[in-house]
Amino acid sequence: MTTRPIDPEVQAIRDLLAARPRPADLAERRKRLDALGGSYPLPRDVRVEPATAHGVPAEWTEAPGADASRVLLYLHGGGYVAGSLASHRPMVAEAGRQAGLRTLALDYRLAPEHPFPAAVEDAVAGYRHLLESGFAPGRIAIGGDSAGGGLTAAALLAIRDRGLPMPGCGWLVSPWVDLESASASMETKSAEDPMVQKVYLLEIAAMYRGGAAARDPLVSPLQADLRGLPPLLVQVGSAETLLDEGVAFAGKAGAAGVAVTLEVWPDMIHVWHLFHPQLAAGRWALGKAGAFLREQLAG
Amino acid sequence: MTTRPIDPEVQAIRDLLAARPRPADLAERRKRLDALGGSYPLPRDVRVEPATAHGVPAEWTEAPGADASRVLLYLHGGGYVAGSLASHRPMVAEAGRQAGLRTLALDYRLAPEHPFPAAVEDAVAGYRHLLESGFAPGRIAIGGDSAGGGLTAAALLAIRDRGLPMPGCGWLVSPWVDLESASASMETKSAEDPMVQKVYLLEIAAMYRGGAAARDPLVSPLQADLRGLPPLLVQVGSAETLLDEGVAFAGKAGAAGVAVTLEVWPDMIHVWHLFHPQLAAGRWALGKAGAFLREQLAG
Repeated sequence: MTTRPIDPEVQAIRDLLAARPRPADLAERRKRLDALGGSYPLPRDVRVEPATAHGVPAEWTEAPGADASRVLLYLHGGGYVAGSLASHRPMVAEAGRQAGLRTLALDYRLAPEHPFPAAVEDAVAGYRHLLESGFAPGRIAIGGDSAGGGLTAAALLAIRDRGLPMPGCGWLVSPWVDLESASASMETKSAEDPMVQKVYLLEIAAMYRGGAAARDPLVSPLQADLRGLPPLLVQVGSAETLLDEGVAFAGKAGAAGVAVTLEVWPDMIHVWHLFHPQLAAGRWALGKAGAFLREQLAG
Repeated sequence: MTTRPIDPEVQAIRDLLAARPRPADLAERRKRLDALGGSYPLPRDVRVEPATAHGVPAEWTEAPGADASRVLLYLHGGGYVAGSLASHRPMVAEAGRQAGLRTLALDYRLAPEHPFPAAVEDAVAGYRHLLESGFAPGRIAIGGDSAGGGLTAAALLAIRDRGLPMPGCGWLVSPWVDLESASASMETKSAEDPMVQKVYLLEIAAMYRGGAAARDPLVSPLQADLRGLPPLLVQVGSAETLLDEGVAFAGKAGAAGVAVTLEVWPDMIHVWHLFHPQLAAGRWALGKAGAFLREQLAG
């Protein structure tokens, strides 16, 4: 068997990441992630509007042709300790364009200043805000990447457990759903993954959890009873340590009677969608997600 | 958490199956499965044409609008000991219609008269026939259900290992890829699954294997090195004992760098597509498969 050549676009991103190792200082890490979002100019046809959702800072984006009755509530990644509206703005705006809907990205509270369950509370508050603004639950999607993917799952569980009407679907990109990092790919994909390693995950998991157990179902949705969740799309790269927990989560949701689609993308690294302006596979993955959101929110 | 009501259409099929337990006699089992195909009238606009592919009996189907340059090589299910062109004709014809291509269904040799590797040899012969007939490899899909899904995986592996050009994609419905039946859903889904139980699987696995080991990668593709396979769609129901091996296969293929899409369909039973004339979810699943085949074979 020959070894496949790596997508040259993803190799360029790997080279970029290798040249700039993650800073040890948290404030620096946050700046770095925000700068990534700022490094791609936002298309001029995207309208951005600041908002507040039950006290949580947020922002609307809208590309031409968006159906104003449909919305994606977006929860950014960054390990629950970094990431912001700025870091993910280009990715969120493009997801909205592909899905033909408005997006409301949420600037939920970060750890360690605000440990669990602050982020979950903010996510549910964001969802309540959309309901109270008149969106039909079936026209709302919740999505997120990495920690935001885990937070998407946790928000869906909290919405279910509080008896709120369920949204139309969920979209999880490279979701972090096992804060124990116990899956095999933490080791088997360690050499391939340029961004996420177990030692780092356990460090930020401790910051996020505060006093909560790593196996708390809202901390690690892989441990949850997943019955009653809406249709889910899980997208994960083959070159990431989080691969196995994404697959396991999809399998567990499916076994619980949830309609699940799992996509594994060859060679792709953690949340490759972030690099979509320079990565065709990122644009394709956003296109697939857009098609999923259109279909699920059609009613 | 409330228990969801079961899809009434799938409940009707469950009632039908419960009223007619699987016969112990193999000749009776074969007749029964063939009769299922015959129980649904073939749409009158489908053209059926008998064929021979390197000596293997086969048949073409074509619905109006099919692109004659694209083809699905189909490998029926039936545990490697039953199933035929007749049993799966309505399902295969509808898959071809949804995908907008011609289908060549293969009447490969069955066990115990013809144990492993007869079926794999016939599948590869069918693929060679298509290549020699002038189809571009990237315009050929290989698909199958249950044992035919496992056979699809085995054929892809054999095609790779013999250095033949790879087809454009693979489509696996409720695939039987672990002839040891070692996955957890053999137990956890046993009460829910009206068709497939571990005792039965081990019985027919022994008929099929002949002298080969259950862990031979062409007998149990779950054990294979899956690198180099083309994009795969795996569709599996949440109410079947084969659920976990389908999920595991998708995860393993993804980890090996294969572009994989896995769909888990709530409440659906083993190869629910067979019942599509009376089951909307069967038609939808064929529609999703059709869209996948169109996309992958587009070049």
